[in-house]
Amino acid sequence: MSATDYSTLKLTTITAKLEDRILVVTLNRPQKQNMFSVKMSEELVRVFQLGDEDDRVHVIILTADPAAPAFCAGVTLLGRKEDKEHEHRDPGGQVALAIYNNRKITIAAVNGHASGTGVTALQLPFDFRFIWAGAKLKFPFARLGIVPDSTSTYLLTRLIGESSAAYVLLSGDSLKPNSPHLSSLYANILPNRTDVLPFALQAAKNVAYNIGQVAYTYTKSLIHRSGSSIEENHLLESRAMKIIGTSKDTAEGAQLFMQRRPPKYTDTLSENASSWYPWWKPLDVKSPKSKL
Amino acid sequence: MSATDYSTLKLTTITAKLEDRILVVTLNRPQKQNMFSVKMSEELVRVFQLGDEDDRVHVIILTADPAAPAFCAGVTLLGRKEDKEHEHRDPGGQVALAIYNNRKITIAAVNGHASGTGVTALQLPFDFRFIWAGAKLKFPFARLGIVPDSTSTYLLTRLIGESSAAYVLLSGDSLKPNSPHLSSLYANILPNRTDVLPFALQAAKNVAYNIGQVAYTYTKSLIHRSGSSIEENHLLESRAMKIIGTSKDTAEGAQLFMQRRPPKYTDTLSENASSWYPWWKPLDVKSPKSKL
Amino acid sequence: MSATDYSTLKLTTITAKLEDRILVVTLNRPQKQNMFSVKMSEELVRVFQLGDEDDRVHVIILTADPAAPAFCAGVTLLGRKEDKEHEHRDPGGQVALAIYNNRKITIAAVNGHASGTGVTALQLPFDFRFIWAGAKLKFPFARLGIVPDSTSTYLLTRLIGESSAAYVLLSGDSLKPNSPHLSSLYANILPNRTDVLPFALQAAKNVAYNIGQVAYTYTKSLIHRSGSSIEENHLLESRAMKIIGTSKDTAEGAQLFMQRRPPKYTDTLSENASSWYPWWKPLDVKSPKSKL
Repeated sequence: MSATDYSTLKLTTITAKLEDRILVVTLNRPQKQNMFSVKMSEELVRVFQLGDEDDRVHVIILTADPAAPAFCAGVTLLGRKEDKEHEHRDPGGQVALAIYNNRKITIAAVNGHASGTGVTALQLPFDFRFIWAGAKLKFPFARLGIVPDSTSTYLLTRLIGESSAAYVLLSGDSLKPNSPHLSSLYANILPNRTDVLPFALQAAKNVAYNIGQVAYTYTKSLIHRSGSSIEENHLLESRAMKIIGTSKDTAEGAQLFMQRRPPKYTDTLSENASSWYPWWKPLDVKSPKSKL
Repeated sequence: MSATDYSTLKLTTITAKLEDRILVVTLNRPQKQNMFSVKMSEELVRVFQLGDEDDRVHVIILTADPAAPAFCAGVTLLGRKEDKEHEHRDPGGQVALAIYNNRKITIAAVNGHASGTGVTALQLPFDFRFIWAGAKLKFPFARLGIVPDSTSTYLLTRLIGESSAAYVLLSGDSLKPNSPHLSSLYANILPNRTDVLPFALQAAKNVAYNIGQVAYTYTKSLIHRSGSSIEENHLLESRAMKIIGTSKDTAEGAQLFMQRRPPKYTDTLSENASSWYPWWKPLDVKSPKSKL
Repeated sequence: MSATDYSTLKLTTITAKLEDRILVVTLNRPQKQNMFSVKMSEELVRVFQLGDEDDRVHVIILTADPAAPAFCAGVTLLGRKEDKEHEHRDPGGQVALAIYNNRKITIAAVNGHASGTGVTALQLPFDFRFIWAGAKLKFPFARLGIVPDSTSTYLLTRLIGESSAAYVLLSGDSLKPNSPHLSSLYANILPNRTDVLPFALQAAKNVAYNIGQVAYTYTKSLIHRSGSSIEENHLLESRAMKIIGTSKDTAEGAQLFMQRRPPKYTDTLSENASSWYPWWKPLDVKSPKSKL
């Protein structure tokens, strides 16, 4: 798996192609309804990691073949039997962390039905979600005698509020994208399955060509790690502003503002992110010794 | 008050009846518009405690006689005069904690007008809220020169967001269930007062017969105590998944998934909850010495 | 700048007039599209501070001349070049703190287009937001190569949820007040520019004459600083209730409840707020030595 040419990257469960600053990852198990697996979790973590590290990548889109029977039919993985209780790490959660903590803009282009991990790990941790109006969405965890996966109990309360999160996870109802219980979850709902990826690509180009790489990384991280009080947030935003305020991109943005022309942002994460970033210390979840 | 037979449980302010795994608690002061009182707070705390501890109970519904003049006309209790400042414990808040922390699924079936504590303690801490479309809802606290009760300042911000919470609590406006300020608060709004309890019973049966007891308890607790970061949530969900993954109910759920038949979940909280649960240490609010 | 007569208070960038317990602050740079500046930030902080300290003021409204080309056309301030990285304090954030932490009810009456700081500092930290349906709203930060300002990354996630906050801040799209991405942000949307201030004044009078000063201060602070768990919130609400429960205003509120007449609340923050308030210790953001 090489970072130098995504146009040939074909893995077992996904394919990935880099074009126009946008890395398009396509689920590639149509014969299995794109069902989630340990292999898929590992390949998704790797491809999002590659996209994170490669300055040429500005946006990562996850999608499926719109002709596939489903975007992703789910399956929650319960882990190896030999794991001790505190050693198990939910593969869906590992994918969710790789997406939520990704420094590039991430887009879920959901062009088919989705269930379980297909509606949690493969949708909730993204920056934008676009979806086909006809998609059936299922959160079947409690009905199957298991608990929700992929950090969905954290993300849903922040995305749609605790009232809707409780209903969605505890009722097990099948939902449509325009359900009031999912209000504000999807940035756009498109009439046809084949509309979703083109719409996502257009949104991705808007980001990739009109927004600076350091600016969008800092912005998404300020949303995700906004501080425990408004005062702490003020110190974080102020420092981020000062760091970015001396950058080439900010100078370009100021000119742009005067000249009303499209921008040419050139700052990159590998050169211009500042040693202050990330300002938070993420809990190490990889070590089997990590306990709460 | 006995845990062995709820069909005869008649207290001063409520009645309680267990049927089909569902404990239906009915407010029983129609002549007083079901107004909240210290007595009612004590009886509600006791009956929710009984329901929490009894494995036969899967869902607890709170409702009123649909012919009563109100679901609950409120009244905030200011406490005994002799209490010291840090000793006072809001009776509405004690009811709210008994419901929010209950391990069973809780449903408010609001089939009449509600005000004050009737719209806070008796609605906000529940997992699902169903309501009559014609109900008038009032949050009159600030207009009466007092502060909101029943942990509503915590729950409303999590249920409907801080913008709506501020408007609802500070305007004192009378609202209808379909008000945009209450968007997503109610899982369903029913046209007639007499529709509400039957609808709630149907939702309750769905939970009671299709969802495992340990699974729904863990799910609701993961929503309420989701961790202070996405990484912490990943460790919590992973551990919960591992614990549940070795249970009889999960094996049943997996078979069910293959065989597409209704489940027969048998695990119970008293036998199968694991010593890890609860994973959080709730602040002891009962001791008069508990200070912040 | 005197606190004794607001009817003559004319500063460079704003005017302020006290009438009927309501302090109306009007942006006063119509020739510059009411653009934000360091001078404006200083004057706004001072006038909100005056309103906070003066017992005669119950509500502070921020508005603009409805004939001005914009409510506020923005401009994010990047700070003095000589500031060290941790010394910079975003002027928009300083205004946001002065409004969010204000003990009086604050209302944004947005009667024109708004961009940048005009949609962040001058709208998000308020208790109520009323707006003209035709207003164009822009969050242009990322497009200009800079990060969002004025604690908007903290406030937006709490006001409209993380899904909408991410879309609004990362897309840079121009939005209308009724956009689903801004759902619940505005308490009311009015058809004409000239409708907004009269509507805001009516809401302000409702608060100023029907709600006690100590009651609304405690209520808004309980929403903003609601505690880190439901148990902590229960202790906070209980103590606030006990403190207020012995006040003249609560006695008046109880009579009012019986007699069904308009209230005459007389308690003031300078006499009756209790030494317990504020119960939280705000991080000192003013000292240049304050670091995270």
